[in-house]
Amino acid sequence: MARTLEVCLSPSLIPHYETDGRIVVVIDIFRATSSICYGFENGALEIIPVATIEECKSYEGKDYLLAAERNGEVVAGFNFGNSPFSYSEDKVKGKKIVLTTTNGTHAINQAKNAKKIVVGSFLNLDSLASWLNQQHDDVLLLCSGWKNKFNLEDTLFAGALVQQLRTNVSNFCDAAIAAEDLYLKAKETGLREYLYKSSHSQRLKELNIEDDIQFCLKQNICNIIPIMKENKLIPM
Amino acid sequence: MARTLEVCLSPSLIPHYETDGRIVVVIDIFRATSSICYGFENGALEIIPVATIEECKSYEGKDYLLAAERNGEVVAGFNFGNSPFSYSEDKVKGKKIVLTTTNGTHAINQAKNAKKIVVGSFLNLDSLASWLNQQHDDVLLLCSGWKNKFNLEDTLFAGALVQQLRTNVSNFCDAAIAAEDLYLKAKETGLREYLYKSSHSQRLKELNIEDDIQFCLKQNICNIIPIMKENKLIPM
Repeated sequence: MARTLEVCLSPSLIPHYETDGRIVVVIDIFRATSSICYGFENGALEIIPVATIEECKSYEGKDYLLAAERNGEVVAGFNFGNSPFSYSEDKVKGKKIVLTTTNGTHAINQAKNAKKIVVGSFLNLDSLASWLNQQHDDVLLLCSGWKNKFNLEDTLFAGALVQQLRTNVSNFCDAAIAAEDLYLKAKETGLREYLYKSSHSQRLKELNIEDDIQFCLKQNICNIIPIMKENKLIPM
Repeated sequence: MARTLEVCLSPSLIPHYETDGRIVVVIDIFRATSSICYGFENGALEIIPVATIEECKSYEGKDYLLAAERNGEVVAGFNFGNSPFSYSEDKVKGKKIVLTTTNGTHAINQAKNAKKIVVGSFLNLDSLASWLNQQHDDVLLLCSGWKNKFNLEDTLFAGALVQQLRTNVSNFCDAAIAAEDLYLKAKETGLREYLYKSSHSQRLKELNIEDDIQFCLKQNICNIIPIMKENKLIPM
């Protein structure tokens, strides 16, 4: 059967794509989906992605770690934001987390009608690609972007997935073709090197999170695939 | 002064971009903006881009050629659609045209707040780049896409412009960087060759308009830059 793979380059474009009956992979490389993967790898029990800071606060006193990031920084009054180093074993093992971020959790909430919603990052690239290759549903890769604009790092990761899914898919949208070609080019240069030209990466540099960036570009240090069940992400 | 160049990959993303005070270049390579450039080169007096078929019809009997395209085909009952070969000198010289298309005229109408709206295509690439290089305003390249999804051909043209504007611009968004790299890659392969992988180009092939595609990829056969004045495009 002809299987379709599409790449949606911004959460704002979701209304133009089919999500019903499809697997949606949510991508926010710097840093929400990288941190979510790393958190589950380190024993977090569940992560509830919420859209607003208020919603996040409403879990206060209910046995959740509260994580809130806006514009790349931890929101005042919260335990932590979306740095992967906040999701280490000593901090998250056996814990439940509520998370709101500028881009990633917004994207997750745009995909609510999908058959399955899973979370992707370079950290779990091979596990995710291998699982996707065993499925039969059409796939939509949803890049979170930066404030609804296209960004390079999410697109590069989408391209890395396209490359691994190529043999099991027959229909690719133009964005999938572009993402794969950009990934192949960036891989030649080295991902970090390539991203130095990106505006978002420059912005992150100003936030002084080079260690986070380097970490989020590591490949395959996680095996777990986070998946949505009702309103929560859990390890598959 | 730091000059900014951004690329908006779909008319649906326009709300996330500044248009006030900027020059917006509208791009719909297959085929609206290519045909508009070619029409002015061949002596058309003005082209009114309208959003709906009804609006186009309302100009009936008022000394306008009526052009309407939907899903790649001429709408029944209209003089012509958006094939560049309908905009030859014998057909359009001294004429006024009203035009509605699936993607291109929609994009033009999304940019209404811009300081200047101009029309770009491979046909007038060098003239347009040279004019843009003489301006001081920030520039937004607006790709029409296909039904609000990303498409390759509009992005490649945006990339061709980015390449020519590079030395006069200091801030590039991620989409501009991606567009330029895709253009450089496609140029190596040959544009037509590269676009064979594109889904939209396949769709156009089914419409049996290979001649149109080849024509719309020719570079610099037009010198004219179409510009919006009130609700009309006229030659600059």
